[in-house]
Amino acid sequence: MERLFRMAEIGATKNGGVCRLALSEEDRIARDLFTEWAKELGCAVHFDNMGNQFASKAGYDPGAPSLLIGSHLDSQPTGGKYDGVLGVLAGLEVIARLREENINHKHSIDVVNWTNEEGSRFAPAMIGSGVFAGVFDAEYAYSQIDSDGNFFKEELSRIGYLGKSHDKRKYRACFELHIEQGPVLESEKKQIGIVTGVQGIRWYHITIRGQEAHAGPTPMEMRSDPVRKLHTIIADLYSLADKYQPASRLTIGSIKTDPGSINTVPGSVTLSLDIRQPDNNTLQLIHEEIENICTHKYKDTELEPIWHSPSVPFHKDCIEAIENAADTLQVPYKKMFSGAGHDAVCMSRIAPTGMIFIPCKDGISHNEAEYASPDDIEAGISVLYEAVKSIIK
Amino acid sequence: MERLFRMAEIGATKNGGVCRLALSEEDRIARDLFTEWAKELGCAVHFDNMGNQFASKAGYDPGAPSLLIGSHLDSQPTGGKYDGVLGVLAGLEVIARLREENINHKHSIDVVNWTNEEGSRFAPAMIGSGVFAGVFDAEYAYSQIDSDGNFFKEELSRIGYLGKSHDKRKYRACFELHIEQGPVLESEKKQIGIVTGVQGIRWYHITIRGQEAHAGPTPMEMRSDPVRKLHTIIADLYSLADKYQPASRLTIGSIKTDPGSINTVPGSVTLSLDIRQPDNNTLQLIHEEIENICTHKYKDTELEPIWHSPSVPFHKDCIEAIENAADTLQVPYKKMFSGAGHDAVCMSRIAPTGMIFIPCKDGISHNEAEYASPDDIEAGISVLYEAVKSIIK
Repeated sequence: MERLFRMAEIGATKNGGVCRLALSEEDRIARDLFTEWAKELGCAVHFDNMGNQFASKAGYDPGAPSLLIGSHLDSQPTGGKYDGVLGVLAGLEVIARLREENINHKHSIDVVNWTNEEGSRFAPAMIGSGVFAGVFDAEYAYSQIDSDGNFFKEELSRIGYLGKSHDKRKYRACFELHIEQGPVLESEKKQIGIVTGVQGIRWYHITIRGQEAHAGPTPMEMRSDPVRKLHTIIADLYSLADKYQPASRLTIGSIKTDPGSINTVPGSVTLSLDIRQPDNNTLQLIHEEIENICTHKYKDTELEPIWHSPSVPFHKDCIEAIENAADTLQVPYKKMFSGAGHDAVCMSRIAPTGMIFIPCKDGISHNEAEYASPDDIEAGISVLYEAVKSIIK
Repeated sequence: MERLFRMAEIGATKNGGVCRLALSEEDRIARDLFTEWAKELGCAVHFDNMGNQFASKAGYDPGAPSLLIGSHLDSQPTGGKYDGVLGVLAGLEVIARLREENINHKHSIDVVNWTNEEGSRFAPAMIGSGVFAGVFDAEYAYSQIDSDGNFFKEELSRIGYLGKSHDKRKYRACFELHIEQGPVLESEKKQIGIVTGVQGIRWYHITIRGQEAHAGPTPMEMRSDPVRKLHTIIADLYSLADKYQPASRLTIGSIKTDPGSINTVPGSVTLSLDIRQPDNNTLQLIHEEIENICTHKYKDTELEPIWHSPSVPFHKDCIEAIENAADTLQVPYKKMFSGAGHDAVCMSRIAPTGMIFIPCKDGISHNEAEYASPDDIEAGISVLYEAVKSIIK
């Protein structure tokens, strides 16, 4: 908790949050502090060509694959103290406990701080772990530009964290501890979420076309009003979400009328649609029903799929290690899917990976009001510690 | 038709429309041309403190109140050839026919070009006729500023049309010929709409509040999603419109989600609502039902009334004169309400007023595609001419 509050001072905002954008001066200071702490704990510290930082505690078998623990130290512009930071500092805490308890372990441990997880300064999100896992190449990352016209590579170099190449080592396992960023654990009074995978996601734009007309002189029966169709399409979409409960999530985040004038019947309405489902087959069924609604049930409606990210299952060994740890410690837990993306999703492509969630107040994150209780943090780190110990021994 | 096409050259747009914003250079050229034509027809021309232009043909009794015919020469930024212009040039045409037929008439005739009817350069709309009729005072109009920071009064002076004071004369009657700006006459194959009044209008903003949440980690049953309420509120509003048919009109022109991000459950949704009804008592009933929906049926919903313009009936003498003219000429007509505001609405506050509509293609106006057929224009002007003759004789 001391480290967490000390880290929260770097980029602290007025309302108790944090602004520590990737590759900013605040990011540099946070990285330097991470290095300082890691060295105090006897770790060797290095960083790679993406500025991803690794603090290593060697095991007794240099030939055995390492175990990775970590998350990220960058934040949203008005972010909180916990998102990402918790996962990095939990790694240091695990090392500190291993030292305190003088545990002899075979596998080395790397604690990682991934670069630019948030994606709020440089798109896309998870670019540091993404390059590490081979999702993107480094040149693609380097060419990203922030809103002030600064290149990723120049900024990485400016803060002194442009390393030479990336570490090709294979990992025995990867763990990430993170706040849930949703309300489920809090409401179900569970201290631990054992993340079994990340939901599949599909994004769409739906455009409903009508005929722009003056609100005054055009009788109702002579209108082709897209808002009249909008409400039945929305009803159909929510019915679809209801049909595929409990695991499906459907969000209409944006609705726009064109031209959007108070006294004009809109010529068209466009809505965004975000669908999430842990099971890829079910996600496909939902996709087909949406296609059916937009192309067959309604005329003059266009469905434009804009993104599809299939669900990613985490590794059974990692899930099992976390579950055993929670059982041993008698901490109430729940197996669940992650609704959002995390560095662990990238890592799951190249190593057995698992994630641990802890509750956050009211499910709020990416917000200065983000909060996780010391009790829940303690529970999360203890479960992580036990799971790690079971693998590195 | 010659005058109409000649006028359409002033501010002609690429796609066959007109851009002749109030108090622009194009407006000045149009005004000068109006003056030139009026003088060719033997009229005395003057303009008042609002730049409203009056072309007068004297009757044989200088003590008898005049009759006013007119509309406006300014247009929307991408307006058509007919909106407003038709009503002004129809006035000149009436004078031309009176001269051709050598009609001796008691009452004088003024043909008027009202300043800034459209309101697209200087708000509000109908400001020239509004000041003339005492709806606004001139100082209020003078202080209006366009989007480039130009004052109304300076621009009026710059184009040379700032007159001294406004003519206090009382009018025997006022007539305005205008395209319908709606699809009714065309679809019912009527050449003439006898406008019995202008609909009452109420405008609102409705805000539905929920709780902003991440689309990914927040299960459906733990959301307070305003879009889920939105679609039932929209359904209720359309049901209300259906209940008060045939004369009511309900338009939801604008819908906005906040923050409007594809992967965020909106914290709130705001929609605009435009209600129109010819009968003020019925408009009041609809208003009360809307209040009931927004304040009792749904929680967390705010109704903000932003404008109320009661319906305005036109004068029975004017309606009768137009109807007799249409009967005499055996032109198919329909009595109807105007859905939009017109200079005639302002004039109806100070003089017996009537309006004549003619069809426009597909109900389209405020658009470069605006079109009225020569046949319908001929019918409209002939009915206007007969109605005017019956009153000035």
